Amino acid sequence: MAKILIIYHSNSGRTEQMAKFVTEGAKMIGHHEVRLKSIDNADKSDILWANALAVGTPTNLGAVSWQMKKFWDEISEELWGKIDGKIATVFSASASYGGGNEITCLNMLSILINYGFLVFGVTDYAGADFSPHYGAISATNVNGKNERAGCVLLGKRLGEWASVFVDHKQNDHPRFSIKL
Amino acid sequence: MAKILIIYHSNSGRTEQMAKFVTEGAKMIGHHEVRLKSIDNADKSDILWANALAVGTPTNLGAVSWQMKKFWDEISEELWGKIDGKIATVFSASASYGGGNEITCLNMLSILINYGFLVFGVTDYAGADFSPHYGAISATNVNGKNERAGCVLLGKRLGEWASVFVDHKQNDHPRFSIKL
Amino acid sequence: MAKILIIYHSNSGRTEQMAKFVTEGAKMIGHHEVRLKSIDNADKSDILWANALAVGTPTNLGAVSWQMKKFWDEISEELWGKIDGKIATVFSASASYGGGNEITCLNMLSILINYGFLVFGVTDYAGADFSPHYGAISATNVNGKNERAGCVLLGKRLGEWASVFVDHKQNDHPRFSIKL
Amino acid sequence: MAKILIIYHSNSGRTEQMAKFVTEGAKMIGHHEVRLKSIDNADKSDILWANALAVGTPTNLGAVSWQMKKFWDEISEELWGKIDGKIATVFSASASYGGGNEITCLNMLSILINYGFLVFGVTDYAGADFSPHYGAISATNVNGKNERAGCVLLGKRLGEWASVFVDHKQNDHPRFSIKL
Repeated sequence: MAKILIIYHSNSGRTEQMAKFVTEGAKMIGHHEVRLKSIDNADKSDILWANALAVGTPTNLGAVSWQMKKFWDEISEELWGKIDGKIATVFSASASYGGGNEITCLNMLSILINYGFLVFGVTDYAGADFSPHYGAISATNVNGKNERAGCVLLGKRLGEWASVFVDHKQNDHPRFSIKL
Repeated sequence: MAKILIIYHSNSGRTEQMAKFVTEGAKMIGHHEVRLKSIDNADKSDILWANALAVGTPTNLGAVSWQMKKFWDEISEELWGKIDGKIATVFSASASYGGGNEITCLNMLSILINYGFLVFGVTDYAGADFSPHYGAISATNVNGKNERAGCVLLGKRLGEWASVFVDHKQNDHPRFSIKL
Repeated sequence: MAKILIIYHSNSGRTEQMAKFVTEGAKMIGHHEVRLKSIDNADKSDILWANALAVGTPTNLGAVSWQMKKFWDEISEELWGKIDGKIATVFSASASYGGGNEITCLNMLSILINYGFLVFGVTDYAGADFSPHYGAISATNVNGKNERAGCVLLGKRLGEWASVFVDHKQNDHPRFSIKL
Repeated sequence: MAKILIIYHSNSGRTEQMAKFVTEGAKMIGHHEVRLKSIDNADKSDILWANALAVGTPTNLGAVSWQMKKFWDEISEELWGKIDGKIATVFSASASYGGGNEITCLNMLSILINYGFLVFGVTDYAGADFSPHYGAISATNVNGKNERAGCVLLGKRLGEWASVFVDHKQNDHPRFSIKL
C-alpha cells in the first residue's frame, strides 16, 4: 500500500476541483492510502508522509502561483536533499488553452525534479484532442468531460505507478505488457 | 515597410494551414512585404531577408520536429551571431491540447532566443478560453474558429510589432497607448 | 533616451551584485536613464515607467523565487494586458552550474512573454566557456571575471537594444551590420 | 538485474566522452547489465531492451540536436504508447555555461516524459558550484574534475534508481533512508 498525496493551491476553486478529480482517479486503484490537501492545510509532514504525489497549481502568468512556490521554497530548508526518490506528477488550471497551463506544468515538474523526484505525465488521451502528457490541464471549464477525464486518468496513473514502483505489484498496470 | 517571413514545417498539413492564417493576419497591417515559405523551399537567404518572423512547427513529442531543428542547426554555421535583433514569434499544431503544443512553442522560442532574436507572444484572447500567449496553437481542428483566430491574431501582432520596432511607426499599434 | 529598469530580488546578496554589474553595462551606452531597484522598494509605477527591463531573481529550486513571482502576480491585476511591447532580459544567481540558473532564466523570460514583452538573451561570449544566451547567470562566485563580464554584456545589450528599438538609433549597435 | 542503456549523439566527441563517464558510474552499482551506444549504431530494439536510460545530446542552439530528435521521432511511430514506465535521465555537452545545456536537458527530459517515462536529475553536488540537478552538463572542458564527477554521479544514480525501482532492492540506495 503506497501513500498518495494530492496537494494543491487554488485561487478560483478550479485547481481544487481538478484535485478532487485526480483523487477520484487515484482511489480507483483501490489499495492505496490517498490524502487530499490544500497547501493552506499542509506542511512538510505531508510531503514526508507521501511516496507518490500529484501537485496542482493555478496557471498564473504561465508559471506556478507564488503561493505554491512559497510552500516548496520554505520547506526546502529542512527537506531538500532528504526526500529524493518519490514519484510525482502535476496538474494546472488556467484561463485559456494556449495560456500557459502546459508551461506551468513543466515549471512544477522542474521544481519536483530539483527535489530529486521521478516525474511523469500520461501518454493516454482523455478524449479527442485532449491529453495530460505533461500533467492534467484545464481552462475555465474544469468540469468539462475531457478536462475531468484528464484529471481522473492522471490520478489513476499515479495509483498505477505507485503500485508498480512503490508496492512492486506489476499486475496493477494492465496496459503495459512490458516487464519492467 | 518591414520584411515579414512566415516559415514553417508541416507533416500533416495542419501547421501549413496555420501558416496561411498567420500570413492573413500579417497582411492586415497592410504596408509590409510578407513572404510565406515551407522550410522545404527556404534557405538562409530567406532568414537573412526577414526583419520579423513567425516560425511554425509540428508538435512532435512535445518539441519541434527534427526537420525544423535541422533547418536551424544547419544554417547556424554561417548565420549564427550575425543576425541578432530580428523580432520573432512562433506557432505549432499538435494532436491534442495538453499534448505539448505550448512546450513546443517554448522550445522554438528558446531556439530563436539563442539566435539573438527578440521573441514574443500575444496577450489577447482569440476566443473564450483560447489565447496565443506563447505562440499560436492548435490541435487537430486547425480550422476551428478559435484556432484560426489565434493564428490571425499572431500574424497581426507580428505586423504591428514590425511597424513599431522595425518601421518605427507607433500609430500602427492602436491598442497600446503606452509611448514606447 | 530610453528608460531602463534593472529590477531584482536577492536573498544572499548575489543577485543584487549581479544587478549592479548589469546596471554598469546599461550605463555604458550613455544616453539612457537607468534605474536600479530591489523589488522591496519597487512597485507597479516602476514597471510602467520603464521601456526596457532586466529582471534578476535567485535560482530557488530551479525557478524564480516566490518573492519575485509574488511581485509580478500582484501587479498583474492592474497592469496585465496594458503594458505589452516593452523589451526585457533576465539574470539569475544560483548555488551551482547545472543547478537551474538557465531554467530559472527561462522561467522568468516566460513570465515576461506572458506580459506581452519582447524578450532576448545575448549571443556574445563573456569568456571562454561562458555566455549569457538566455540571460546572465552565476553560481556562488558572482564576482568572478566571467560572471561579471556576463552581467555587463547583458546590461550593455539591453542599452543597445533600447537604442535600436526604443530610441530608433541604429548606429548605437555597431556589431550588427544588418539593417533592421 | 536491470538493463541500463546509455545512448547518445555526439558531433564533437564531447557528448560521447560524457557518455563513457556516465557508463562508468552506472557500472559502479555492479549487478546491472549496462549497454553504451551511439544513436548511429542503435535502433528501437535497444530502447525496447532497456529498463533504465541515460540519454545524451549535444547542446545545439539550446536544444537537442536534430539527429537526436530524428532518432526519437522516427521510432515513435512504432514504439510510442507502448514503452511507458521506463526510468530515465539525461546529459548534454555545450560550448559554454549559460549557453543552453540545462535548457537542452529540459528539452530532452520533456521528450522522454512524452514517451511516458519517469525522469529524474541528481540532487547531489559534483563539486563546488557544480551539480547535475536536471542531468549532467559540460562545456568544452568535458574532462574537467567537476564535469567528470557530474557524469559519474548521474550514472551511479541511474544504477541506484534502477536497483530501487526496477529490481526493488532498496538497500542499494544507502543515501536515502526513506522507506519508499
